[in-house]
Amino acid sequence: MDRREERGIMFIVSAPSGAGKTTLCRMAVEHFKDIRFSISYTTRSPRKGEEEGRDYHFVSEATFKEMLERGDFLEWAEVHGYFYGTPKDEVERMLKEGHDVILDIDVQGAKQIKSKGKEGVYIFIAPPSLEVCRERLRKRGVDSEEEIDRRLENAKKELAEALWYDYIIINDRLEDAFERLKAIILAEKSRAFRMRPFLPKI
Amino acid sequence: MDRREERGIMFIVSAPSGAGKTTLCRMAVEHFKDIRFSISYTTRSPRKGEEEGRDYHFVSEATFKEMLERGDFLEWAEVHGYFYGTPKDEVERMLKEGHDVILDIDVQGAKQIKSKGKEGVYIFIAPPSLEVCRERLRKRGVDSEEEIDRRLENAKKELAEALWYDYIIINDRLEDAFERLKAIILAEKSRAFRMRPFLPKI
Repeated sequence: MDRREERGIMFIVSAPSGAGKTTLCRMAVEHFKDIRFSISYTTRSPRKGEEEGRDYHFVSEATFKEMLERGDFLEWAEVHGYFYGTPKDEVERMLKEGHDVILDIDVQGAKQIKSKGKEGVYIFIAPPSLEVCRERLRKRGVDSEEEIDRRLENAKKELAEALWYDYIIINDRLEDAFERLKAIILAEKSRAFRMRPFLPKI
Repeated sequence: MDRREERGIMFIVSAPSGAGKTTLCRMAVEHFKDIRFSISYTTRSPRKGEEEGRDYHFVSEATFKEMLERGDFLEWAEVHGYFYGTPKDEVERMLKEGHDVILDIDVQGAKQIKSKGKEGVYIFIAPPSLEVCRERLRKRGVDSEEEIDRRLENAKKELAEALWYDYIIINDRLEDAFERLKAIILAEKSRAFRMRPFLPKI
Protein backbone atom coordinates (compact mmCIF):
# COMPACT_ATOMS: atom_id res chain seq x y z
CA MET A 1 0.00 0.00 0.00
CA ASP A 2 1.42 3.36 -0.96
CA ARG A 3 1.13 5.79 1.94
CA ARG A 4 3.10 8.56 0.23
CA GLU A 5 0.10 10.87 -0.08
CA GLU A 6 -0.77 10.46 3.59
CA ARG A 7 1.00 12.16 6.46
CA GLY A 8 3.34 9.79 8.31
CA ILE A 9 2.98 8.70 11.92
CA MET A 10 5.31 9.95 14.66
CA PHE A 11 6.42 7.16 17.02
CA ILE A 12 7.96 8.42 20.24
CA VAL A 13 10.01 5.76 22.00
CA SER A 14 11.37 6.26 25.53
CA ALA A 15 13.08 4.01 28.02
CA PRO A 16 15.40 4.06 30.98
CA SER A 17 19.12 3.49 30.17
CA GLY A 18 19.85 -0.16 29.57
CA ALA A 19 16.32 -1.09 28.50
CA GLY A 20 17.47 -1.67 24.91
CA LYS A 21 15.61 1.20 23.30
CA THR A 22 18.20 2.24 20.74
CA THR A 23 18.72 -1.33 19.49
CA LEU A 24 14.96 -1.78 19.05
CA CYS A 25 14.58 1.53 17.19
CA ARG A 26 17.40 0.58 14.81
CA MET A 27 15.76 -2.79 14.15
CA ALA A 28 12.44 -1.10 13.36
CA VAL A 29 14.07 1.30 10.89
CA GLU A 30 15.72 -1.63 9.12
CA HIS A 31 12.50 -3.64 9.03
CA PHE A 32 10.04 -0.99 7.81
CA LYS A 33 11.25 0.67 4.64
CA ASP A 34 8.93 3.66 5.18
CA ILE A 35 10.21 4.57 8.63
CA ARG A 36 12.80 7.26 9.15
CA PHE A 37 14.89 7.78 12.24
CA SER A 38 15.15 11.28 13.60
CA ILE A 39 18.77 12.15 14.37
CA SER A 40 19.00 14.18 17.58
CA TYR A 41 21.47 16.92 18.41
CA THR A 42 23.56 16.42 21.53
CA THR A 43 26.31 18.15 23.45
CA ARG A 44 27.79 14.92 24.80
CA SER A 45 30.87 13.35 23.18
CA PRO A 46 30.52 10.44 20.76
CA ARG A 47 30.79 7.00 22.40
CA LYS A 48 32.99 4.31 20.87
CA GLY A 49 31.50 3.39 17.49
CA GLU A 50 29.10 6.33 17.27
CA GLU A 51 29.15 8.40 14.10
CA GLU A 52 28.28 12.04 13.45
CA GLY A 53 25.04 12.26 11.46
CA ARG A 54 24.17 8.60 11.92
CA ASP A 55 23.80 8.30 15.70
CA TYR A 56 23.65 11.99 16.62
CA HIS A 57 24.62 15.40 15.45
CA PHE A 58 27.36 16.22 17.94
CA VAL A 59 27.47 19.95 18.66
CA SER A 60 29.00 22.32 21.20
CA GLU A 61 26.93 23.72 24.04
CA ALA A 62 27.13 27.17 22.42
CA THR A 63 25.69 25.88 19.12
CA PHE A 64 22.98 23.96 20.96
CA LYS A 65 21.91 27.05 22.87
CA GLU A 66 21.76 29.13 19.69
CA MET A 67 19.47 26.53 18.12
CA LEU A 68 17.39 26.49 21.26
CA GLU A 69 16.91 30.26 21.13
CA ARG A 70 15.89 30.07 17.47
CA GLY A 71 13.19 27.51 18.45
CA ASP A 72 14.74 24.80 16.30
CA PHE A 73 13.77 21.93 18.62
CA LEU A 74 10.57 19.94 18.82
CA GLU A 75 11.74 18.95 22.29
CA TRP A 76 14.96 19.21 24.19
CA ALA A 77 16.24 17.93 27.50
CA GLU A 78 19.19 17.92 29.79
CA VAL A 79 20.04 14.36 30.82
CA HIS A 80 23.01 13.39 32.99
CA GLY A 81 24.42 16.88 32.41
CA TYR A 82 24.23 16.87 28.60
CA PHE A 83 21.75 18.48 26.21
CA TYR A 84 19.71 16.54 23.66
CA GLY A 85 17.30 18.00 21.12
CA THR A 86 15.08 16.86 18.25
CA PRO A 87 15.20 19.04 15.12
CA LYS A 88 11.66 20.27 14.43
CA ASP A 89 11.87 21.06 10.70
CA GLU A 90 13.48 17.76 9.76
CA VAL A 91 10.81 15.69 11.54
CA GLU A 92 8.02 17.77 10.02
CA ARG A 93 9.48 17.39 6.53
CA MET A 94 9.65 13.57 6.83
CA LEU A 95 6.08 13.34 8.17
CA LYS A 96 4.79 15.57 5.34
CA GLU A 97 6.55 13.35 2.80
CA GLY A 98 4.48 10.45 4.18
CA HIS A 99 7.26 8.74 6.09
CA ASP A 100 6.69 7.45 9.58
CA VAL A 101 9.30 8.81 11.98
CA ILE A 102 10.78 7.23 15.10
CA LEU A 103 12.00 9.55 17.84
CA ASP A 104 14.32 7.86 20.33
CA ILE A 105 13.94 10.30 23.22
CA ASP A 106 13.87 10.33 26.98
CA VAL A 107 10.82 10.77 29.19
CA GLN A 108 11.31 14.52 29.68
CA GLY A 109 11.39 15.09 25.92
CA ALA A 110 8.41 12.83 25.25
CA LYS A 111 6.43 14.76 27.85
CA GLN A 112 7.18 18.05 26.11
CA ILE A 113 5.88 16.73 22.78
CA LYS A 114 2.81 15.26 24.45
CA SER A 115 2.08 18.50 26.29
CA LYS A 116 2.18 20.39 22.97
CA GLY A 117 -0.69 18.15 21.88
CA LYS A 118 1.30 16.66 18.99
CA GLU A 119 -0.36 13.63 17.44
CA GLY A 120 1.90 10.67 17.97
CA VAL A 121 2.19 7.14 19.28
CA TYR A 122 3.97 6.97 22.63
CA ILE A 123 5.86 3.75 23.38
CA PHE A 124 7.72 3.00 26.60
CA ILE A 125 10.37 0.25 26.67
CA ALA A 126 10.90 -1.15 30.17
CA PRO A 127 13.55 -3.55 31.43
CA PRO A 128 12.14 -6.70 33.08
CA SER A 129 13.75 -5.55 36.35
CA LEU A 130 16.19 -2.96 37.67
CA GLU A 131 18.75 -5.72 38.27
CA VAL A 132 18.70 -6.64 34.58
CA CYS A 133 19.10 -2.95 33.79
CA ARG A 134 22.23 -2.79 35.95
CA GLU A 135 23.72 -5.92 34.38
CA ARG A 136 23.17 -4.55 30.87
CA LEU A 137 24.85 -1.25 31.71
CA ARG A 138 27.81 -3.14 33.21
CA LYS A 139 28.12 -5.35 30.12
CA ARG A 140 28.06 -2.32 27.85
CA GLY A 141 31.16 -1.26 29.73
CA VAL A 142 31.03 2.46 29.04
CA ASP A 143 29.84 3.77 32.41
CA SER A 144 31.54 3.79 35.82
CA GLU A 145 29.73 2.17 38.79
CA GLU A 146 28.92 5.67 40.03
CA GLU A 147 27.45 6.60 36.64
CA ILE A 148 25.46 3.33 36.61
CA ASP A 149 24.00 4.14 40.05
CA ARG A 150 22.98 7.56 38.76
CA ARG A 151 21.36 6.00 35.67
CA LEU A 152 19.42 3.53 37.82
CA GLU A 153 18.11 6.28 40.07
CA ASN A 154 16.94 8.03 36.92
CA ALA A 155 15.44 4.76 35.61
CA LYS A 156 13.21 4.54 38.69
CA LYS A 157 11.88 8.04 38.06
CA GLU A 158 11.29 7.23 34.41
CA LEU A 159 9.47 3.96 35.16
CA ALA A 160 7.02 5.94 37.25
CA GLU A 161 6.04 7.79 34.05
CA ALA A 162 5.44 4.66 31.94
CA LEU A 163 1.69 4.61 32.42
CA TRP A 164 0.85 7.76 30.47
CA TYR A 165 2.41 6.21 27.35
CA ASP A 166 0.12 4.46 24.84
CA TYR A 167 2.09 1.22 24.92
CA ILE A 168 4.58 -0.52 27.19
CA ILE A 169 7.00 -3.16 25.94
CA ILE A 170 8.94 -5.21 28.50
CA ASN A 171 12.30 -5.97 26.90
CA ASP A 172 13.08 -9.35 28.43
CA ARG A 173 14.02 -11.21 25.24
CA LEU A 174 15.01 -8.89 22.38
CA GLU A 175 13.14 -10.91 19.71
CA ASP A 176 9.88 -10.80 21.69
CA ALA A 177 10.23 -7.10 22.34
CA PHE A 178 10.87 -6.48 18.65
CA GLU A 179 7.78 -8.54 17.71
CA ARG A 180 5.75 -6.21 19.93
CA LEU A 181 7.33 -3.06 18.51
CA LYS A 182 6.64 -4.25 14.94
CA ALA A 183 3.08 -5.14 15.94
CA ILE A 184 2.45 -1.69 17.44
CA ILE A 185 3.74 0.05 14.31
CA LEU A 186 1.67 -2.13 11.96
CA ALA A 187 -1.44 -1.86 14.15
CA GLU A 188 -1.17 1.93 14.25
CA LYS A 189 -0.97 1.98 10.45
CA SER A 190 -4.25 -0.01 10.49
CA ARG A 191 -6.20 2.45 12.62
CA ALA A 192 -9.57 3.18 11.05
CA PHE A 193 -9.04 6.92 10.57
CA ARG A 194 -5.72 6.24 8.81
CA MET A 195 -7.19 3.53 6.55
CA ARG A 196 -10.06 5.69 5.31
CA PRO A 197 -8.40 6.50 1.94
CA PHE A 198 -7.94 2.77 1.23
CA LEU A 199 -11.57 1.67 1.68
CA PRO A 200 -13.43 0.56 -1.47
CA LYS A 201 -15.37 3.49 -2.93
CA ILE A 202 -19.13 2.95 -2.56
CA MET B 1 4.04 -13.70 29.98
CA ASP B 2 1.21 -15.27 31.91
CA ARG B 3 -1.94 -13.20 31.55
CA ARG B 4 -4.17 -15.65 33.40
CA GLU B 5 -4.75 -13.35 36.36
CA GLU B 6 -5.77 -10.49 34.10
CA ARG B 7 -9.12 -10.13 32.39
CA GLY B 8 -8.94 -11.05 28.70
CA ILE B 9 -9.56 -8.68 25.80
CA MET B 10 -12.68 -8.89 23.64
CA PHE B 11 -11.92 -8.54 19.91
CA ILE B 12 -14.99 -7.81 17.80
CA VAL B 13 -14.41 -8.59 14.12
CA SER B 14 -16.93 -7.57 11.44
CA ALA B 15 -16.88 -7.60 7.66
CA PRO B 16 -19.17 -7.75 4.66
CA SER B 17 -19.77 -11.22 3.20
CA GLY B 18 -16.83 -12.37 1.13
CA ALA B 19 -14.23 -10.21 2.88
CA GLY B 20 -12.57 -13.27 4.43
CA LYS B 21 -13.45 -12.55 8.06
CA THR B 22 -14.11 -16.12 9.22
CA THR B 23 -10.87 -17.45 7.72
CA LEU B 24 -8.89 -14.70 9.44
CA CYS B 25 -10.55 -15.30 12.80
CA ARG B 26 -9.79 -19.04 12.58
CA MET B 27 -6.15 -18.28 11.77
CA ALA B 28 -5.90 -15.97 14.80
CA VAL B 29 -7.33 -18.62 17.12
CA GLU B 30 -4.79 -21.14 15.84
CA HIS B 31 -1.91 -18.69 16.17
CA PHE B 32 -2.55 -17.28 19.67
CA LYS B 33 -2.92 -20.04 22.22
CA ASP B 34 -4.70 -17.71 24.67
CA ILE B 35 -7.48 -16.65 22.30
CA ARG B 36 -10.87 -18.30 22.38
CA PHE B 37 -13.46 -18.16 19.65
CA SER B 38 -17.01 -17.38 20.68
CA ILE B 39 -19.46 -19.80 19.05
CA SER B 40 -22.64 -17.98 17.99
CA TYR B 41 -26.16 -19.35 17.95
CA THR B 42 -27.98 -19.24 14.62
CA THR B 43 -31.28 -20.26 13.10
CA ARG B 44 -29.85 -20.82 9.63
CA SER B 45 -29.02 -24.34 8.42
CA PRO B 46 -25.45 -25.61 8.46
CA ARG B 47 -23.54 -25.02 5.20
CA LYS B 48 -21.51 -27.83 3.64
CA GLY B 49 -18.65 -28.66 6.03
CA GLU B 50 -20.00 -26.71 9.00
CA GLU B 51 -20.26 -28.52 12.33
CA GLU B 52 -22.56 -28.01 15.32
CA GLY B 53 -20.60 -26.57 18.25
CA ARG B 54 -17.53 -25.76 16.16
CA ASP B 55 -18.86 -23.26 13.63
CA TYR B 56 -22.20 -22.41 15.23
CA HIS B 57 -24.79 -23.72 17.61
CA PHE B 58 -27.63 -24.43 15.19
CA VAL B 59 -30.99 -23.93 16.86
CA SER B 60 -34.64 -23.54 15.87
CA GLU B 61 -36.28 -20.12 15.72
CA ALA B 62 -38.39 -21.06 18.75
CA THR B 63 -35.31 -21.90 20.85
CA PHE B 64 -33.55 -18.73 19.71
CA LYS B 65 -36.52 -16.60 20.73
CA GLU B 66 -36.68 -18.22 24.17
CA MET B 67 -33.01 -17.43 24.72
CA LEU B 68 -33.61 -13.90 23.50
CA GLU B 69 -36.40 -13.41 26.03
CA ARG B 70 -34.20 -14.73 28.83
CA GLY B 71 -31.57 -12.11 27.89
CA ASP B 72 -28.98 -14.77 27.03
CA PHE B 73 -27.36 -12.77 24.22
CA LEU B 74 -24.62 -10.17 24.36
CA GLU B 75 -25.85 -9.13 20.92
CA TRP B 76 -28.15 -10.60 18.33
CA ALA B 77 -29.14 -9.75 14.80
CA GLU B 78 -31.29 -10.79 11.94
CA VAL B 79 -29.22 -11.05 8.75
CA HIS B 80 -30.57 -12.22 5.40
CA GLY B 81 -33.66 -13.53 7.21
CA TYR B 82 -31.82 -15.60 9.83
CA PHE B 83 -31.08 -14.93 13.51
CA TYR B 84 -27.58 -14.87 14.99
CA GLY B 85 -26.67 -14.34 18.64
CA THR B 86 -23.60 -14.29 20.89
CA PRO B 87 -23.98 -16.12 24.22
CA LYS B 88 -23.31 -13.61 27.00
CA ASP B 89 -22.35 -15.94 29.87
CA GLU B 90 -19.87 -17.96 27.84
CA VAL B 91 -17.99 -14.87 26.61
CA GLU B 92 -17.94 -13.39 30.13
CA ARG B 93 -16.58 -16.66 31.59
CA MET B 94 -13.72 -16.80 29.06
CA LEU B 95 -12.78 -13.15 29.64
CA LYS B 96 -12.80 -13.66 33.42
CA GLU B 97 -10.52 -16.69 33.03
CA GLY B 98 -8.04 -14.36 31.34
CA HIS B 99 -8.57 -15.57 27.79
CA ASP B 100 -8.90 -13.12 24.95
CA VAL B 101 -12.07 -13.74 22.97
CA ILE B 102 -12.76 -13.17 19.27
CA LEU B 103 -16.34 -12.42 18.25
CA ASP B 104 -16.99 -12.94 14.53
CA ILE B 105 -20.13 -10.81 14.20
CA ASP B 106 -21.84 -8.55 11.72
CA VAL B 107 -22.02 -4.76 11.88
CA GLN B 108 -25.46 -4.68 13.54
CA GLY B 109 -24.24 -6.91 16.36
CA ALA B 110 -20.99 -5.02 16.82
CA LYS B 111 -22.96 -1.79 17.09
CA GLN B 112 -25.12 -3.25 19.88
CA ILE B 113 -22.05 -4.22 21.92
CA LYS B 114 -20.44 -0.83 21.30
CA SER B 115 -23.64 0.99 22.31
CA LYS B 116 -23.70 -0.93 25.60
CA GLY B 117 -20.30 0.62 26.30
CA LYS B 118 -18.54 -2.75 26.48
CA GLU B 119 -14.77 -2.49 26.49
CA GLY B 120 -13.48 -4.15 23.36
CA VAL B 121 -11.33 -3.79 20.30
CA TYR B 122 -13.37 -3.26 17.14
CA ILE B 123 -11.83 -4.53 13.90
CA PHE B 124 -13.38 -4.17 10.45
CA ILE B 125 -12.20 -6.41 7.59
CA ALA B 126 -12.87 -4.86 4.19
CA PRO B 127 -12.51 -6.37 0.73
CA PRO B 128 -10.17 -4.44 -1.60
CA SER B 129 -13.20 -3.75 -3.84
CA LEU B 130 -16.83 -4.79 -4.32
CA GLU B 131 -15.86 -6.64 -7.50
CA VAL B 132 -13.42 -8.83 -5.54
CA CYS B 133 -16.20 -9.43 -3.00
CA ARG B 134 -18.51 -10.65 -5.79
CA GLU B 135 -15.84 -12.95 -7.26
CA ARG B 136 -15.15 -14.50 -3.85
CA LEU B 137 -18.83 -15.20 -3.23
CA ARG B 138 -19.13 -16.80 -6.69
CA LYS B 139 -16.07 -18.98 -6.08
CA ARG B 140 -17.48 -20.11 -2.73
CA GLY B 141 -20.37 -21.46 -4.80
CA VAL B 142 -23.01 -21.55 -2.07
CA ASP B 143 -25.12 -18.52 -3.01
CA SER B 144 -27.33 -17.87 -6.06
CA GLU B 145 -26.67 -14.76 -8.19
CA GLU B 146 -29.72 -13.17 -6.59
CA GLU B 147 -28.39 -13.94 -3.10
CA ILE B 148 -24.99 -12.54 -4.09
CA ASP B 149 -26.63 -9.30 -5.27
CA ARG B 150 -28.39 -9.06 -1.92
CA ARG B 151 -25.14 -9.66 -0.03
CA LEU B 152 -23.38 -6.96 -2.06
CA GLU B 153 -26.11 -4.43 -1.36
CA ASN B 154 -25.64 -5.26 2.31
CA ALA B 155 -21.83 -5.00 1.94
CA LYS B 156 -22.20 -1.39 0.75
CA LYS B 157 -24.23 -0.50 3.84
CA GLU B 158 -21.70 -2.23 6.08
CA LEU B 159 -18.72 -0.49 4.47
CA ALA B 160 -20.33 2.81 5.36
CA GLU B 161 -19.99 1.81 9.04
CA ALA B 162 -16.29 0.90 8.88
CA LEU B 163 -15.04 4.21 10.22
CA TRP B 164 -16.37 3.89 13.75
CA TYR B 165 -14.30 0.73 14.23
CA ASP B 166 -10.89 1.01 15.91
CA TYR B 167 -9.05 -0.70 13.07
CA ILE B 168 -9.62 -1.46 9.40
CA ILE B 169 -7.85 -4.28 7.59
CA ILE B 170 -8.10 -4.46 3.79
CA ASN B 171 -8.05 -8.14 2.91
CA ASP B 172 -6.30 -8.05 -0.46
CA ARG B 173 -3.70 -10.78 0.14
CA LEU B 174 -4.67 -13.14 2.99
CA GLU B 175 -1.12 -13.31 4.44
CA ASP B 176 -0.85 -9.51 4.64
CA ALA B 177 -4.28 -9.21 6.22
CA PHE B 178 -3.34 -11.87 8.78
CA GLU B 179 -0.09 -10.02 9.59
CA ARG B 180 -2.18 -6.96 10.38
CA LEU B 181 -4.69 -8.90 12.49
CA LYS B 182 -1.87 -10.51 14.50
CA ALA B 183 -0.24 -7.09 14.91
CA ILE B 184 -3.46 -5.54 16.21
CA ILE B 185 -3.94 -8.33 18.76
CA LEU B 186 -0.34 -8.15 19.98
CA ALA B 187 -0.37 -4.34 20.07
CA GLU B 188 -3.58 -4.30 22.11
CA LYS B 189 -1.97 -6.69 24.61
CA SER B 190 0.87 -4.13 24.88
CA ARG B 191 -1.36 -1.17 25.77
CA ALA B 192 0.04 0.65 28.79
CA PHE B 193 -2.96 0.13 31.08
CA ARG B 194 -2.88 -3.61 30.36
CA MET B 195 0.88 -3.89 30.93
CA ARG B 196 0.79 -2.20 34.34
CA PRO B 197 1.04 -5.49 36.31
CA PHE B 198 4.20 -6.47 34.40
CA LEU B 199 6.26 -3.33 35.08
CA PRO B 200 9.27 -3.74 37.39
CA LYS B 201 8.33 -2.87 40.96
CA ILE B 202 10.00 0.34 42.10
